[in-house]
Amino acid sequence: MDMLIEKIKSEGVVLSPSVLKVDSFLNHQIDPKLMHEVGRDFADRFSNSGITKILTIESSGIAPAVMAGLHLNVPVVFARKRKSLTLVNDLITSTVYSFTKEETSEISVSKKYLSEKDNVLIIDDFLANGQAALGLADIAEKAGSSIAGIGIVIEKGFLKGGQQLREKGFRVESLAIIDSLENGMISFEKTSENVEELLR
Amino acid sequence: MDMLIEKIKSEGVVLSPSVLKVDSFLNHQIDPKLMHEVGRDFADRFSNSGITKILTIESSGIAPAVMAGLHLNVPVVFARKRKSLTLVNDLITSTVYSFTKEETSEISVSKKYLSEKDNVLIIDDFLANGQAALGLADIAEKAGSSIAGIGIVIEKGFLKGGQQLREKGFRVESLAIIDSLENGMISFEKTSENVEELLR
Repeated sequence: MDMLIEKIKSEGVVLSPSVLKVDSFLNHQIDPKLMHEVGRDFADRFSNSGITKILTIESSGIAPAVMAGLHLNVPVVFARKRKSLTLVNDLITSTVYSFTKEETSEISVSKKYLSEKDNVLIIDDFLANGQAALGLADIAEKAGSSIAGIGIVIEKGFLKGGQQLREKGFRVESLAIIDSLENGMISFEKTSENVEELLR
Repeated sequence: MDMLIEKIKSEGVVLSPSVLKVDSFLNHQIDPKLMHEVGRDFADRFSNSGITKILTIESSGIAPAVMAGLHLNVPVVFARKRKSLTLVNDLITSTVYSFTKEETSEISVSKKYLSEKDNVLIIDDFLANGQAALGLADIAEKAGSSIAGIGIVIEKGFLKGGQQLREKGFRVESLAIIDSLENGMISFEKTSENVEELLR
């Protein structure tokens, strides 16, 4: 997705060979117009999949998920990272290890909002080691929902998450795939879209 | 806002005389089309205010804030409730007490995304005792930003937050104001819009 890749190139900050900071448009400050286009792209990719619900995780997944929900005209459910006092009964839970935060958290979704009738699109901001996506898939499976696919804004293609999810049979659609962050440089995987551009 | 009030009437659950659960469209599951209209309403109310940035707080403020940002064509910044490893330097912080969760949390925004050049619209899902809005206003003031107003999806008019914020001189625009949750009933404040409807 050109608009996203341009934004990553111009505003992404490489903190280490594994950490890319995109706080200016995705993880802290949010660019609503870019998110609107991100949502449209997810909706286009899954337009024939019969999606009934989008599942994401607080907080950075919410903006792209809600925009995809707007275009697909389906509700969005966000998993919470800890229980709140007004949300205690009938939870479906899973655990997620965050390599960034170096901690395990329990994530949960109310049983009311996911069922065996749902065909779920999982959306998240980043795919690195795949832990969040696996936790969300685990919740959808526990609810008896089918999983149409996983939509990712930025995939770190040099980590194992994407490969692992695809080997499990999930359809993973990443709008930008980063090949490497070595030497402070962001290089992107050559997608068919990029290659076309290169051939022009 | 009629669409919102109808949604609260049909799906809101009164848990106690002070707690209204709207998990089916705002706090856990999100209705993207409703949020799109909520965002449009905020944008209409503040269209002449010269807003440069929207400030909200994770997680439930994000969806209405991003939709308002889409309509006003300005970036959204969400305050984080605790520090993350990739966001540690140059923070503006404040503290917020949550009556629902019975805990105090530190909220923070990177100095990079709020400055004295900004004219901020604060947006949040609920206004009860006003603690979150006051914390966000405190952060905007510490950044030297001016505050154009506070946009709230649902205000609990029977609690002190709204009155306190208005007495401090803030322009508070709430899309739905609840007068009472006594006896399991949701009653709304008569806004000029409601009264017009009643007079028809």
